[in-house]
Amino acid sequence: MDFLLWEQFRIHETLGLDSAEQRDIIQTNMANARAWAEGPLAQSYKETDEQEAYLADGKVVLPDSYPGLYQGFSEMWTQWQDGAAQGTAMPPIVQNLIIEMFMAGNASFMTYVGFSQPAKSLLRAHGSDDLNATYGPALQDMRATACLCITEKGAGSDLSKLSALATKQDDGRYLLTGHKWLISAGSHEMTDNIYYFVLARTDPKQTGMAGLSCFLVPRYRIDEAGAHRIDNGIRVNEVVTKMGFKGCANTHLLFGEDGVETQAFLLGRMEGTGLQQLMMMMKPARISTGIFALGLASSAHETSVAYSQQRVQGKRFDRAMSARAPSLPIAEHPDVRRMRLDMAAYTSGCRAMIARLGLYQSFEDDPSQPEDLRRAADDISEVLLPIVKAYTSDKAWVVCETAIQTHGGVGFTRDYPAQQNARDCKVLSIWEGTNHIQALFLFRDKLGMCVQPKRLNTLRAAIEDTLARAEATGALDKDVHNLRDALAALGDATAAARDCVRYQRMNDVPQFAVELQAALGDIVIAWHLLEAAEIALKALASGDADAAFYADKVDIARHFLRRRLPQSAASLRAIAGEMQDVVATQLAKTQAA
Amino acid sequence: MDFLLWEQFRIHETLGLDSAEQRDIIQTNMANARAWAEGPLAQSYKETDEQEAYLADGKVVLPDSYPGLYQGFSEMWTQWQDGAAQGTAMPPIVQNLIIEMFMAGNASFMTYVGFSQPAKSLLRAHGSDDLNATYGPALQDMRATACLCITEKGAGSDLSKLSALATKQDDGRYLLTGHKWLISAGSHEMTDNIYYFVLARTDPKQTGMAGLSCFLVPRYRIDEAGAHRIDNGIRVNEVVTKMGFKGCANTHLLFGEDGVETQAFLLGRMEGTGLQQLMMMMKPARISTGIFALGLASSAHETSVAYSQQRVQGKRFDRAMSARAPSLPIAEHPDVRRMRLDMAAYTSGCRAMIARLGLYQSFEDDPSQPEDLRRAADDISEVLLPIVKAYTSDKAWVVCETAIQTHGGVGFTRDYPAQQNARDCKVLSIWEGTNHIQALFLFRDKLGMCVQPKRLNTLRAAIEDTLARAEATGALDKDVHNLRDALAALGDATAAARDCVRYQRMNDVPQFAVELQAALGDIVIAWHLLEAAEIALKALASGDADAAFYADKVDIARHFLRRRLPQSAASLRAIAGEMQDVVATQLAKTQAA
Repeated sequence: MDFLLWEQFRIHETLGLDSAEQRDIIQTNMANARAWAEGPLAQSYKETDEQEAYLADGKVVLPDSYPGLYQGFSEMWTQWQDGAAQGTAMPPIVQNLIIEMFMAGNASFMTYVGFSQPAKSLLRAHGSDDLNATYGPALQDMRATACLCITEKGAGSDLSKLSALATKQDDGRYLLTGHKWLISAGSHEMTDNIYYFVLARTDPKQTGMAGLSCFLVPRYRIDEAGAHRIDNGIRVNEVVTKMGFKGCANTHLLFGEDGVETQAFLLGRMEGTGLQQLMMMMKPARISTGIFALGLASSAHETSVAYSQQRVQGKRFDRAMSARAPSLPIAEHPDVRRMRLDMAAYTSGCRAMIARLGLYQSFEDDPSQPEDLRRAADDISEVLLPIVKAYTSDKAWVVCETAIQTHGGVGFTRDYPAQQNARDCKVLSIWEGTNHIQALFLFRDKLGMCVQPKRLNTLRAAIEDTLARAEATGALDKDVHNLRDALAALGDATAAARDCVRYQRMNDVPQFAVELQAALGDIVIAWHLLEAAEIALKALASGDADAAFYADKVDIARHFLRRRLPQSAASLRAIAGEMQDVVATQLAKTQAA
Repeated sequence: MDFLLWEQFRIHETLGLDSAEQRDIIQTNMANARAWAEGPLAQSYKETDEQEAYLADGKVVLPDSYPGLYQGFSEMWTQWQDGAAQGTAMPPIVQNLIIEMFMAGNASFMTYVGFSQPAKSLLRAHGSDDLNATYGPALQDMRATACLCITEKGAGSDLSKLSALATKQDDGRYLLTGHKWLISAGSHEMTDNIYYFVLARTDPKQTGMAGLSCFLVPRYRIDEAGAHRIDNGIRVNEVVTKMGFKGCANTHLLFGEDGVETQAFLLGRMEGTGLQQLMMMMKPARISTGIFALGLASSAHETSVAYSQQRVQGKRFDRAMSARAPSLPIAEHPDVRRMRLDMAAYTSGCRAMIARLGLYQSFEDDPSQPEDLRRAADDISEVLLPIVKAYTSDKAWVVCETAIQTHGGVGFTRDYPAQQNARDCKVLSIWEGTNHIQALFLFRDKLGMCVQPKRLNTLRAAIEDTLARAEATGALDKDVHNLRDALAALGDATAAARDCVRYQRMNDVPQFAVELQAALGDIVIAWHLLEAAEIALKALASGDADAAFYADKVDIARHFLRRRLPQSAASLRAIAGEMQDVVATQLAKTQAA
């Protein structure tokens, strides 16, 4: 993480955080976050699995440690916020790293606090002054948590089928009826209040994506004096049981269906703008999912490497049958090293990608940055967004599998956490829009159906910069060649997709979208690993102290670019060929007609 | 399965099972097996997860349904055995398919019966007449289960570190002391007795792989009258908790450490031959692991496809925003179809590979078969053996992931079985020798360090036959090209590995062994899918009734050979390049010296 901040992304220069004081604050915050993540959070991880959230007498019971964790988090976070308000540096790139540590410590717990920040922005942007005055303070000082309620039983990824209904009364109030399903961190007793941000219809006759509004629906309404909490009629009908993430209560919520009315407060001045309002939630939710996945994968990676260093078993390949040959720590066996390099490539590559997104967010938010830099940052961020969500969550499953395998037999037991990491992470390829939906989002919205190459060209130009620097080292020739080859294959695939769109075969592209997204993800990871290797080679040449660390950066990059990336290029050429066949068939049909 | 038996492997011809009666018996047995697998076995699958095996008062408590299942299995199996004894056909190819159904129904339960058959062979081959007379009958009529005890805490994959000790007494008896760890189906109360086949030393001074003997160690000794059971001092110290496979009690067993002596009966006439005796167990154990994995993957595949056909959600890509466009069963969405083809390719490919192994076993066991056929069958079987174990278990994890993803959000809940399939299957890449150990076994023992190409050449010749027939259809050109290309890449990789061995860089090969094994597995799967597609095209041309079934066979093959296989070829070329670099470095060093 230090390497990312001060060597790969050089935030002292790029973000102007060049004073010793600023650096100090960041390092102190990072150290405090680490201590809390490795301490109370990580210590509660196994308990989180053993004390699955459940429903008793209408209330959700969480693992014993959660109220204490919530208090610890609130104190730390509000302190940082106060610091940030006083101008103390906590740029998004640092926040992303800190959140990763928390996710690695106990991801289930983090679902209870994860939506607070976006909820504040939503309320500030679209809530009335009255609403902000009444409900804002508890969100600010964390006496209330926030929770996003979109999904219903009949409408998972398809919002056009939502049916929850907010009916406007003669006195202007909205009363909500209906249900929401699989709502993460949907209820608990850790705070005085919970704010549900609910997507609902106001007119039962409207169907489809139109006519959806977003409401703030508090668990307890606050009376005019601000003193009393009034039951707002929200009931928990079920807490589903899951393969992992067991501390996160995924709830079936009923609104206004128990004889007690549920009041809902419309966000914005008019009905029907809920989807647009929630758009601003999508970006942080997708990044956050990527960080969830990265945290779980990092944890699996680190615990398995630690195990492999202390577990002594087996001998060198050519001396396997010799009674006198020494047994080795399994970390020294070639395949355990191969597994470590795979895990390190995915986790450090994804970490760098997510750090870049944080850096670019600072550029975008800062009008003093040059316009072309801000535009490039925006282009690249848009392309990276679905990849951060989908690629990181898909690879987390692979990393966790590798971590289990590294442990051997004990990896399958619940005595070691890698299997819990695997079980926990599986939801991440599904929620916040499945990874196929991310791939459609990439193809349609981010790459402009491959007909508008602007954003992708910006990304390619940035990668070319890195390639030129890597080439100049003279030590990464094979790697540079492989990444150039993968970029050429990407060009083939996007050209073929574009032709499908041009020749009326647009519907043939989605079947290849997941592979396109996965291969583009590999290219992005390769880019970041190559960038790190180039920096590491320079550090090695300058005789830096920690030679093993930098040499490992080079090894990780070479491993990925030589042994994994060629498969992505092959996959891109394969789908390009399939799409070219589609186009050729279509052209033959047109000519015949 | 019918397609495999009667069309792909044509057992009426290849095994001479051409009478209506023989076919009838097989079909009846298959139907009975299916009814039992889909009935009582599958009905107990969720319970198996909820009622994890545990230890109470020194005894292992299993899920409620297990004693009933055990009785059902015993009756069916002994009936089949009686039939087989009377010459009724149950060739290995059929048995493998039936066992797959059972694994798909409830894999954890199957661990309690899985070792009975190999144990009988072991006892018959190496047990004394007395031992067979005393302990054989209960094994035969399933009043005793059998259990293989190799692993110890300090010695997972490394048998040289085993320390359990059988000490010969003056009266010739052996008394066993020590412990065994992670012993699957290690204790239960379903039968009168349990026979432990224990690998132990007889001389504590010996270390390494030498001096290991195999003992039959009954839970209860039988007195000379054969009437009384005598406690043989075996204690269960722990039942480990696991991420899946929860009905299988993985036990820590203590022998002769509780004040009650444990008698052990040596197999064979002399000490120190235990490893050789157990060799005959390795082959069925590895095939059985492959079938475990296939059963779990098939189950995940089938339940997710069924779900996708009834779950209606989302619209066609180009009409996603249209309120009037109809919502579709998710099975019709292009990416859900892509996931189905992936799952179908892996499961039907692995099923065919395992069926082939069964067929070849019949050839090997039958002296009336032509010598060259038997030799070819033996060559190919040897190469396939580690792939059946490793490839099937690795891909089961992938298939289960895809099945979870197919379900969307509910796939993560314990209301649907795919997530249990995933959790259950993860042990299979670890036990019976980790998949890396299988890869070393493939490289060293099966491919003769790539220096002795005989077996691989036999396999290639068989694949070339299929390629020629597929080419003749004129409809599989791209697929034939891709498989030829993958074979060429395989040639590059094995040549480079051979050069590493030749030029004293043998220790550099193991780091690539897993990738070599995985790519060879892909080639084998592609071969079987292509073979099926060629047969299906003929059936389609002849106007067979079930056109959809045969067309799907062609689609599955094309999907795999066009979109997955090129990545394997790229992986083979990548590792070939890395090994060539190793050799070049070595040659440069030698020339410099």
